[in-house]
Order: sequence, then C-alpha cells, then structure tokens
Amino acid sequence: MSGAKQIVAKPMIVGQPALIVVDIQKGSFVPRPPSSRLEFMPDAVERYTRARTVVDAAREAGIPIIFVQEAHRRTMVDFGRELDGSESVHCLEGQSGTDFAVEELGMLEDDYRITKRRYSVFFGTDMEILLKGLGVQTVIMVGGFTDVCVHYSFVDGHQMDYYCRVVEDCVSGSSYRAHDAALEAMEYLQAGARRSAQDMVDAFAAIRQQA
Amino acid sequence: MSGAKQIVAKPMIVGQPALIVVDIQKGSFVPRPPSSRLEFMPDAVERYTRARTVVDAAREAGIPIIFVQEAHRRTMVDFGRELDGSESVHCLEGQSGTDFAVEELGMLEDDYRITKRRYSVFFGTDMEILLKGLGVQTVIMVGGFTDVCVHYSFVDGHQMDYYCRVVEDCVSGSSYRAHDAALEAMEYLQAGARRSAQDMVDAFAAIRQQA
Amino acid sequence: MSGAKQIVAKPMIVGQPALIVVDIQKGSFVPRPPSSRLEFMPDAVERYTRARTVVDAAREAGIPIIFVQEAHRRTMVDFGRELDGSESVHCLEGQSGTDFAVEELGMLEDDYRITKRRYSVFFGTDMEILLKGLGVQTVIMVGGFTDVCVHYSFVDGHQMDYYCRVVEDCVSGSSYRAHDAALEAMEYLQAGARRSAQDMVDAFAAIRQQA
Amino acid sequence: MSGAKQIVAKPMIVGQPALIVVDIQKGSFVPRPPSSRLEFMPDAVERYTRARTVVDAAREAGIPIIFVQEAHRRTMVDFGRELDGSESVHCLEGQSGTDFAVEELGMLEDDYRITKRRYSVFFGTDMEILLKGLGVQTVIMVGGFTDVCVHYSFVDGHQMDYYCRVVEDCVSGSSYRAHDAALEAMEYLQAGARRSAQDMVDAFAAIRQQA
Repeated sequence: MSGAKQIVAKPMIVGQPALIVVDIQKGSFVPRPPSSRLEFMPDAVERYTRARTVVDAAREAGIPIIFVQEAHRRTMVDFGRELDGSESVHCLEGQSGTDFAVEELGMLEDDYRITKRRYSVFFGTDMEILLKGLGVQTVIMVGGFTDVCVHYSFVDGHQMDYYCRVVEDCVSGSSYRAHDAALEAMEYLQAGARRSAQDMVDAFAAIRQQA
Repeated sequence: MSGAKQIVAKPMIVGQPALIVVDIQKGSFVPRPPSSRLEFMPDAVERYTRARTVVDAAREAGIPIIFVQEAHRRTMVDFGRELDGSESVHCLEGQSGTDFAVEELGMLEDDYRITKRRYSVFFGTDMEILLKGLGVQTVIMVGGFTDVCVHYSFVDGHQMDYYCRVVEDCVSGSSYRAHDAALEAMEYLQAGARRSAQDMVDAFAAIRQQA
Repeated sequence: MSGAKQIVAKPMIVGQPALIVVDIQKGSFVPRPPSSRLEFMPDAVERYTRARTVVDAAREAGIPIIFVQEAHRRTMVDFGRELDGSESVHCLEGQSGTDFAVEELGMLEDDYRITKRRYSVFFGTDMEILLKGLGVQTVIMVGGFTDVCVHYSFVDGHQMDYYCRVVEDCVSGSSYRAHDAALEAMEYLQAGARRSAQDMVDAFAAIRQQA
Repeated sequence: MSGAKQIVAKPMIVGQPALIVVDIQKGSFVPRPPSSRLEFMPDAVERYTRARTVVDAAREAGIPIIFVQEAHRRTMVDFGRELDGSESVHCLEGQSGTDFAVEELGMLEDDYRITKRRYSVFFGTDMEILLKGLGVQTVIMVGGFTDVCVHYSFVDGHQMDYYCRVVEDCVSGSSYRAHDAALEAMEYLQAGARRSAQDMVDAFAAIRQQA
C-alpha cells in the first residue's frame, strides 16, 4: 500500500464493454481553422473519420454503441455557464452541424442515441440508466473535445466505477496542448486507459470470434 | 455569435460567494517527496499554508467557508476505481493525516464540513443542498490536487451553473505539469477563473467593508 | 419550533413558476378500462382534458410550459425494475400512444419537451438544467399517474428545494385510492400544494395582467 | 405484454442483499403522542425495536448493514422545503435524539453509517457509492417514516434498478393511513416487496447456513 508500489494496468476490457461516441456530429466533419478563441487540431476530421473504424468493429462484435450528441435549445436557456469561457454559441438544435453524423459514422435506426446539454455524457442524461440496462462495466470513448467532453465524461464514468478507456487517435482537442494534457489526466486516473484505434479494433475482433 | 467574438470575463464574484476548501487535511501539511507514482509539487505545504489567509479573509467578511475532507472507509469498500491509476491507498478514516486540518486552517466548531469519497466535492455529498441553502452563486476553490479534486469539482460546479474561481497560488497539483494544465482547463471553462490569493483577500476585504 | 406550531401555507406561487405536464401523451386520451393489474380512474380523460385549460392559461401568461414524455427504447433495455410490479410494458418508442399529445394539449414547436425513462421527471433528464436556466422556483404539475410519476416528481422537486404544487383535478391515478393517498402525501410535504385548475387559471390570469 | 398478464413476484432476495436502517435514531425510541401536525403510530417504538431482530439476523448472516441518520445543521441552512408542510424542526445535529441508536440497535464500530439531509437515503449521500462497492442488488429497508423516508428511499432505489424490499412490521408511519398507503405504493412498484420480519429473519438464517 505504499506510494512506491508498482502500477499494474487492469485488462483493457473488463466485463461487458460499450463504445461511447462523444459529440461526433455533422459539424465535426467540417474543418475548422484556428480562431482567436480556439486553436483546434488540424487533423480533427481525420481523427473523427478514424473513429468510424472503431464503430464498425464494435458493431461487428455486437458491442453496444451509444452515440451522444450535444444540443442546446434554440432559446439558449440551457447554456448555463458554457459561454463564460473559450466556447462561443455551439450546437443549437436545428442547425445542420448539430445533427447526428448518421452517414459519416454509419449509424443505424436502432442505435442508442443520447442528447446532452452539458459536457459530461452523464450529466442530465439517461446514460447511467442505459449502461445499467446493458450491464456495462467498461466504457470506451471516442470523440471530442478530448479535453472537455471526453475528459469530463471519463471522469464521471471513473467516479461511477466504470473501467474507462479513451481511443487516443480517435479523439481531438480544443488544442494539441490541451488534448495531450487531458490524455495524461485520464491515464493518471486509470493506468492503461489510453489505447489506439488498432488496439481496440483488434480486441473487438477477438470478442467477435469468441461469440 | 462568431467564434472570433472577444471573450469578456464575468466579475470575479457574482452574487453570494462561498469558499470551498478542497481536501486540505492534516496530511497536506506533511511534505511529500516525489515517488515513483506521483511527482507532487515541492511548495505544496507553502500553498496550503497560504490558503489560510484566504480562509481568514472569508471569515472576516462573513463569507461561508466549506471544508471538504476526502475519507475512505477502512474496509476500502468505497475506493471504486481510484486505485486503478497513479494514486495508491489514501485518506483512510482513522488515519491521522485524514483528519480535518483544524488548527492549521483555524477551523471553528460551526464551520461547514463535508466528507467525500470521490474526487468531486459534489459527488455523493450534500454540497449542492448546502450551496442552495446558502444561496451561493460563486464558488471559490483552494486545495488539492489542482488537477484532480479541484479541477473536477470546478467542472461539476461549472456544469451546475455556478460561477467558479480557483485561487491559483493556494492549490497544488500531482505535478507542476498537471497543475498548470488544470489551471488552463479551468480558465478555458470560465474566463477569469484563475485568481491570486491577494486578489481574493482584497475582494473579501471590500465585501467586509460594504457589510 | 414545537410540533404543535400552526402550519402556515406558503403562497401558491413563489418567484418564477413553470408548468410541468407529466406524461400526458397520446395514449392518455384513450379510455382504459380497469384491468387485473390496474384499476385506473374512469374520469382520467376528463382530467387530462382539463389540464389543457391550465396549459392555455400558462401560455397566455408567458409562464414556461415543460411537456414531459415517458418513452422506453424498443429493445426494452431501459425498463429497469419497472416491470416487477403492477405495470406492464408501456410507452415504447414508436408506438402511437407514446407520442406527445401535440394536438390535444395545443403544443407548439418551441415548447420545452423532455423525454424520460423513469417515473420522476428529474431522473436521468435535463429537467434541472432547464429549471435553473429558466430561474424557476415554483413547479406546478398536471398529468399522471398522480401516485407514481406525479408524486415522485413532486418529491424530487421538493428535495431539490422547489416550491411544488399539484393541480388535483388535472391529475389521474392508477386507482382512486392511490390517487387520494398521493395527494395527501404531497400536501404533507408542502402545505397548500393541492390546488384546483380554477385556482391556477385565476393565478395565471393575474400574472398575465401584471406583466 | 398485455396489461392482464399475471404479476409474478421476483425472489425476495436477488444477488447480494444489504439491510438499510432508515432513520432509526435515539429519538425513535421515545414514544411520541399525536400532535396537531402528526398523528404518528402508537406502536412505533415496538416496530423499531422489532427491527433489531432483523439487524441481528443480518449481522449473523454476514449481510452488510447500513445505518442511516437524518441530521440537519444547527444553522438550519439545509432544511430546504422540509418545514413547508407537516413536519416541524427535527433532527438537529447535537440534539440527543438525532444520534445513531447505537445501543438500541446493537451497532458496532465498523458498521456502515450514512448521514443524510433529505428524505431519500440516496439524496446527497454516498449511498450509491457504498452499494456499488458492496455489489448490492437487493436493498431491504426498515425504519421510518414508512410514508416519507422509507417510501422515497424505496422509490429512488427502484429507479436505480435495485430490488427493493420493505419489512412491513419494522417500519412506522406519520399515521396509520399514510403508512398503509405507502406500503401499497411500494408493493405496486415491486410485487412481493412487502415482507415480514419473520420472513426476513428466516431468509437471513438460510443465507447464514449456506455460507
């Protein structure tokens, strides 16, 4: 129990996994140049496109996929403090960029969909109801921003006792610097949390073969 | 509503403030050398000691102070996934380092005290009941780790619509690098969130004079 | 502070009110005869129809109206323990009875809508985000069942410090007996909570004139 | 899936059980005559005394016991809307009646204890952290009031997917009428939820012998 004890990572997938696609929406596939507020990452679209490979592998292995959309009411009543910082008005209902990326991600009619108003996918949503219903123990995240919605969803999942994993080449941040720091923070919480798309696709293929 | 719109920081204190002292416990005043797991910050004790000046200024101004303690049951039943990463067993009930830092922080009998099991001061606690009862709109945080309990408490407060501030020279991180990144992340969420102890002491003194 | 102290009801509306329409969906307007599981109330449709008068009065007074729908995913993954008791499968997504009662209640495009998976309108939804955004202090409920979704939404609202009111002739129960008991329970929690549609319509008209 | 389908009760105990003792505190053993506000039940003390037999049987079977105490801060800041109805000021910290009933219930040093500010044992507490840590699936409740803290804790447990049971001769209500209605409401939610102390003691004895 000493602080010097070796850290041993848990298995990548413990029990029933679920793939959570965090805020990869129509607008995520429109390249965004750096602004005075947000630097973004130049390879963001590439990263979200790569997430599709993980989605497809999950689908083939029968692993539940939960697509999460951030959307704000057009009256802007539900932004809370979200406009006090670096983010400007975003994800209004009815804007084309807010829609689920149905074609881009190959979403099907019966896929699980959750709409959220805040950063964490657990905050003010039925995510935990759904995860309990599915018997999920491990949540695997792709999407964006690495340092905001992904990071804070990871933290909530972590505090709710889920094994949490982040596919580091399928997430994109508000800046490279913030992206890197968030990945380090997630790895701090759960050793072995950072994984590659290839690792995850391989693991899903192995699950598929066992089934 | 363009992304290029200038960010204008809100006032430092909006409405009723409360000072939240996050996990400054007896053990926080024992210097900890870097371990193989955690680097710590060499001036941590200095930073927690400085927090006392903010506590005292809040008290003089009649601003509510909420002291939060992390404590885990001795059976270790409530660690959840907290031992899957960089942290080893910590803050067991009954260990001397887990106690509230009564003398070090000048705590009084009737100060508000909250015990938590997770990182966020809101998770599994009566913090929101208390903040609502006090009519608080702005929460000001000191304590540690900057990048864990402070950061994730800030995020929850932010998502619950509180104006959140962090006193950057009264918080200490699991490493300098993580500390800096967390402060940047908080500033990203709410512009002007990062404040100095001197700023806060001055603001509290001004409130005191108005009262 | 003695137990014998007189109970003095608070004003019917304190601060900003909102009207919450609990689970009055398309199917609510289809008369349901008693079954071996549920007795229902023979005047249920009449009661839900009367709720329309309160909705209209709220709209004229500019009081926010929040329409809540219970809906379960077709895979039935999110029923939790809801089928362990008197209720059978209900409110599946895609069933006509599950739809919002747009015409029956005169719902408009921009009305607030919330979908829930559990009994309480606060459980796993963005209700509190919305109420905070609207600055609501008093929640007024119509809908059904009085003893299930209305009662347990009232209890959550109560525990979250909202002034809660129930329009007793615009709610309908799983049985008369259960309906009556639930109304008594709500009145126990907040004296003066039980109100008539007429009281509410009059109060809303008064607010309208002040505006 | 028709409403006429027979209701089949689930087993009394599914998976890992825990016994939750709701608000049986020192003051619960002081007989309270009816007041103008609350009728109480004349056999309340007898009922809480009987709860001890269930506590003892749980202990002998190695079933976790969680003692819950309602306590309000002396500044009364955390009563929320609890004084708007039939209840007057109650359970202040530091009052003798607020203490855990250590001797009366045979509590041990290492028993799980939770302090709450609201009716539900889940609201603003670490109850779910603890239940998850213990791997609990079935929660069994004794205590009071049947129609307030027990009922609303049961409802939250129900909505969180726990199998919920109430020991009907070990709970006491704010009145007989309200007690009966609450028991019916709990049975509505989960068939077979109402059980006797004898049933529970027998079941615990059987678990003990299996161990």
